Amino acid sequence: MDNDRLQALLASMTLKEKFGQLTQITGELYVGKVDDEMVETGPSYPGHILEEETLYAIGSVIGASSAKMTNRIQAEYLKRSRLKIPLLFMHDAIHGYRTIFPIPLGLSCSWDDRLVQRVAEETASELRAAGIHVNFSPMTDLARDARWGRVMESFGEDHLLSGDLGRAMIRGYQKIREGQIPTDGVAACLKHFAAYGAGIGGKDYNTVDMSMREFFEYYGKPYEIALQERPKFVMSSFNAFNGVPVTASPWMLKEILRDRYGFEDLVISDWGAVTELQRHRVARDGREAAELALGAGVDIEMVSTHYLEHFEAIMDKRPELLEDVDAAVLKVLRLKTELGLFENPYADEAAEDAVLMNSASLALAEEAGIRSCVLLKNENETLPLRPEHRNVVLVGPFARTRELLGNWACKGRFGDVVMLEEGLKQADGSLSVAAFGKLEDCPEDVLARCDYIVVAVGEYWEQSGEGHSSVKLELDEEQKRLIRAVKDTGRPYACVCFSGRPLALQDIVDDMPALLWCWYPGTRAGAAVAKLLTGQATPSGKLTMSFPRDSAQTPIYYNEYSTGRPANASSYSSRYQDCDIGPLYPFGHGLTYAGATYSDFDISGRRITETEDLKVTFRIHNPSRYDYSEIVILYIEDAVSKAVRPVREMKAYRVVPVSAYGSVNVELSISLEDLEYLDADLRRTVEPGEFRIYVNDLERPVFTIEY
Amino acid sequence: MDNDRLQALLASMTLKEKFGQLTQITGELYVGKVDDEMVETGPSYPGHILEEETLYAIGSVIGASSAKMTNRIQAEYLKRSRLKIPLLFMHDAIHGYRTIFPIPLGLSCSWDDRLVQRVAEETASELRAAGIHVNFSPMTDLARDARWGRVMESFGEDHLLSGDLGRAMIRGYQKIREGQIPTDGVAACLKHFAAYGAGIGGKDYNTVDMSMREFFEYYGKPYEIALQERPKFVMSSFNAFNGVPVTASPWMLKEILRDRYGFEDLVISDWGAVTELQRHRVARDGREAAELALGAGVDIEMVSTHYLEHFEAIMDKRPELLEDVDAAVLKVLRLKTELGLFENPYADEAAEDAVLMNSASLALAEEAGIRSCVLLKNENETLPLRPEHRNVVLVGPFARTRELLGNWACKGRFGDVVMLEEGLKQADGSLSVAAFGKLEDCPEDVLARCDYIVVAVGEYWEQSGEGHSSVKLELDEEQKRLIRAVKDTGRPYACVCFSGRPLALQDIVDDMPALLWCWYPGTRAGAAVAKLLTGQATPSGKLTMSFPRDSAQTPIYYNEYSTGRPANASSYSSRYQDCDIGPLYPFGHGLTYAGATYSDFDISGRRITETEDLKVTFRIHNPSRYDYSEIVILYIEDAVSKAVRPVREMKAYRVVPVSAYGSVNVELSISLEDLEYLDADLRRTVEPGEFRIYVNDLERPVFTIEY
Repeated sequence: MDNDRLQALLASMTLKEKFGQLTQITGELYVGKVDDEMVETGPSYPGHILEEETLYAIGSVIGASSAKMTNRIQAEYLKRSRLKIPLLFMHDAIHGYRTIFPIPLGLSCSWDDRLVQRVAEETASELRAAGIHVNFSPMTDLARDARWGRVMESFGEDHLLSGDLGRAMIRGYQKIREGQIPTDGVAACLKHFAAYGAGIGGKDYNTVDMSMREFFEYYGKPYEIALQERPKFVMSSFNAFNGVPVTASPWMLKEILRDRYGFEDLVISDWGAVTELQRHRVARDGREAAELALGAGVDIEMVSTHYLEHFEAIMDKRPELLEDVDAAVLKVLRLKTELGLFENPYADEAAEDAVLMNSASLALAEEAGIRSCVLLKNENETLPLRPEHRNVVLVGPFARTRELLGNWACKGRFGDVVMLEEGLKQADGSLSVAAFGKLEDCPEDVLARCDYIVVAVGEYWEQSGEGHSSVKLELDEEQKRLIRAVKDTGRPYACVCFSGRPLALQDIVDDMPALLWCWYPGTRAGAAVAKLLTGQATPSGKLTMSFPRDSAQTPIYYNEYSTGRPANASSYSSRYQDCDIGPLYPFGHGLTYAGATYSDFDISGRRITETEDLKVTFRIHNPSRYDYSEIVILYIEDAVSKAVRPVREMKAYRVVPVSAYGSVNVELSISLEDLEYLDADLRRTVEPGEFRIYVNDLERPVFTIEY
Repeated sequence: MDNDRLQALLASMTLKEKFGQLTQITGELYVGKVDDEMVETGPSYPGHILEEETLYAIGSVIGASSAKMTNRIQAEYLKRSRLKIPLLFMHDAIHGYRTIFPIPLGLSCSWDDRLVQRVAEETASELRAAGIHVNFSPMTDLARDARWGRVMESFGEDHLLSGDLGRAMIRGYQKIREGQIPTDGVAACLKHFAAYGAGIGGKDYNTVDMSMREFFEYYGKPYEIALQERPKFVMSSFNAFNGVPVTASPWMLKEILRDRYGFEDLVISDWGAVTELQRHRVARDGREAAELALGAGVDIEMVSTHYLEHFEAIMDKRPELLEDVDAAVLKVLRLKTELGLFENPYADEAAEDAVLMNSASLALAEEAGIRSCVLLKNENETLPLRPEHRNVVLVGPFARTRELLGNWACKGRFGDVVMLEEGLKQADGSLSVAAFGKLEDCPEDVLARCDYIVVAVGEYWEQSGEGHSSVKLELDEEQKRLIRAVKDTGRPYACVCFSGRPLALQDIVDDMPALLWCWYPGTRAGAAVAKLLTGQATPSGKLTMSFPRDSAQTPIYYNEYSTGRPANASSYSSRYQDCDIGPLYPFGHGLTYAGATYSDFDISGRRITETEDLKVTFRIHNPSRYDYSEIVILYIEDAVSKAVRPVREMKAYRVVPVSAYGSVNVELSISLEDLEYLDADLRRTVEPGEFRIYVNDLERPVFTIEY
């Protein structure tokens, strides 16, 4: 539909029909219960039965999926709608739709935007095949506090990496070709704007409070970067920010999001967030809630229907908002045009099955699973299994479970999942694998002839994700007992751990000679992990969130500011008296089986200028039989600055493929822009002086440069 | 010395002599080691041996005390100083000098500004008798995170109460009469300006980051209130605030402290904080550190001597600072005049002993100890001991220790302290008291005939205080085993707990039928606690800091903001999945033996105006034999506001003496000002609407008023 026709359509709409386009409801309001599978949708706000005229003026639907179901709702809707503007279907496919990929926090440990993009592309294909047009993903909320359950949906604690991977995901979902979303793409919704990850105490939905410095340098940055990819939607966040609920904040949704970050498309509320302005106690009733949200720049109300109920009163009181309303409706109509819905509002039911969980998608899930795992510890090359390890006992609550998808796994089915036991058997037919939930269940003779034990432990998938903040980040007692019992057998053993968040392992890590952190790998979990255990691939991921030693050592993150009393052996330093200094495993930590060496460090100059970047070069040698990708990370440290800066700032990274026994030259650049920060007056600037450059976890700088 | 003579003196000073007045060093630089007692002075910056000309131009000394020692240093100094301007002696008497009173957090649980003032008055008398002129107290840093070790020095989590008690302490120290500090008063130093209590993760010295709303409404407020009492000094805080170390922040020390809060006297750095600007990485060297601090408004440098080393370079570069320097020196000279040092720079050595730890002071310490304790739990009137309880076993690591002073106990001596065992025996001669560190040490026959057990547990005094942040807030395992072993005896028993911070008790509290929280009561500890255990007095304190259930349920405080999803039984609410909602014991909680009843609630009107306060009145009846003071607290809740407000805001409180079997009428006022808050644009305002009024821990509002 060209612009003139869209304008004509807009002009033909009643005010109620306009507000209908700005309202999103759940699919069951059209056809009864649509879904009993594992999509979680949060607290429900069914509200009321909408009168027919209203129901058939609605613009979009959340939570219904499958080509058949969306078609059924669409047909019902179009039959009875006056203007017959097709519905948009929206969904939360956080890490895959039917094929489930690793949780985003796991994916981020690959540091690979290309991999993340491919995952998003597959997800978009499945979504679109299932009749969905918009995906509520990615989430680029910065995650510094492992108590928060939703860290699993994040890309970790660094703002640049989070922004880059968010961008890659948007690129993968939208697949923009010739300026349009193609028929196998979906609109992306960047969320949750803004700073939702900073809830006080790591408690979900909690108040967020921070300085403008903290916001613009860190929490706001990932969205700012991801917005460059032009997602079609941004979701406003649940939290209050510095005293104002974001759903009611024109500062956040207009001044920052639109004016400063340049976003031009649609803002949608989070689930029920408009009605929840009453519980924030900034709105007396639904009408005030609607007026606040609309006035703040929330274009579409999700699940609750205050816009529709109160639009007349609001328009009477604030007629100037009509311009915003018209603009928003036009954006909705344009998107429906771009998606081709006016030509064909239906999904192809016959084609759906061939798309969902096809072999390429499963292969990608396995690849992503492999790339997400992080080898945290590997004493004496405990991993991988060696040729002499043929009789393997696999034990623990994660040995024989298919519940390896992680939370918010959309239409993923446990029945599709490769268990760890199956994965090991399939990975190497010469292995004898006996798997047990508990060590007590393992017959004595099996234990007697076993020559290697794999202990599969973790945090259960329901323990992370939305609404699952925790104060206890330790492995549970039973699993710690299991690990100690395995140790007591005297057999060589390794631990694999599944989890949606960093755990606090200081009380058990000494009993883990090797520890492979698997996050939640998704549909191909067992296959991916088995390839790593058997040495068919090497773990190559590096952490994107610091692991605290203790649950109360939170928040913790690598880029903390310098203090006047840096932690050291003295009591009078910035530390806890009863906890070792720093995280157990820091951001950027991750081992491989390859043991690559770095040499020949060089730099193109020692003085950086406006016109000339500096190139840091070095050589990576892979002395192993593994083809894999080495993750290289470059940090800077500003020697002296007018305002305080972090002890380390990540400024460049690269995922470098290195062949078995091969070497590769790496070049990373540093531009003057990389040295910028916000000074005491919040001006973005580079101050003259020395900057030290660090690579990976090397303790000493590789170079010092000057500006 | 009148103003003309002071001006003449100033005019006669060299620049070095001026900077000398703005430098504070430790006393041993004059006379060798001055002190081996229990004053802790943090990391030492002896720096270098000062040349004689410099050493005898210094303005003040920290850490030396006793009339004899200060006189010795003063005499040595005056003998060799060119201008013979007497030294000021400064010290940290946080909760008493020789007589040790309860830690400030304990004192605050009395909610009694008059009591706090009297404690400060006694402390000032002792300090002055010992040759000290300035006390680095009070600390009004808001304390919301029990992990921070210095919560013991605070007045808790409420900004108004902290400000009021800080004010009372300043009043008590300075004893201003006819506009002057008398000869038994000392200058107060309000600290640590500002927001030092908000270190991320409760880690001492850590970075502080917050919005302007949070600062002006909460963290800044206690200083703003206390500054109305005109302390002679303010100490700048160690922390960086929103990216700028406070020691180098003209915004904090000039714009806020002086221009906004109206402070006109002297700003002193914290210990070594000027030199530590280098570790913050905002200064390249000592010269830059000095320039930054001086330029920011730090008048006096504590312990390090960069001002003196670099003043010429700084004055060359920034001659405009001379005006500030002269003004600061003049303030120092004026204070020395006001303290009478030019007439008599010496303390009266013969008089000192009669002042220190005199009987009135000890009586006050006992009274304050009684008033500080909080009865957290008392099932079935387990406390106090009854007439039939005559054979008491007292057990636990705090049964027979004199280490009950708490951290930073200045010149307090353990030998002076009344142990709990002694206290119990002295309190009631008819009691048979057998005390043991461990239950195993109690002979079987003693246990067999005992009819009551008091278990004395806690956190050792060295575990709280500066530099003692903790991740573990639980009682240690050995003490929990002790409590369970006592329970297993089947005898009636009660727990008393000594601690410098709230502890996380959820794993043991069910095994405590009664729990008396004693904080650290000071010199008269055992006597005070014994009077409560034996029922010679009733506990009457109420908590000023919330008690978390778990170490990781931090920070936690009563006046949190409303969220859109208040904690409830749903996962999708603002809570932790593995921790009950809210604190174990909230702010304001505290039982008595009296069981007073409240009745006859009335209010003078339902509509508040600019001109007319509302009076809330009610009647307290004390049905018990105890004369004591009932603490009454009034909270408001704004029904709807434009920006988010806390779920409760404490607006008035009163310590109400009620006689045994007596009744008393209480009146509390609410003014329009009490309803103000900072709106979304940070304008202080009252918005029209309903406000609910709550009293103490009553769950339902007693009245709803309107504006």
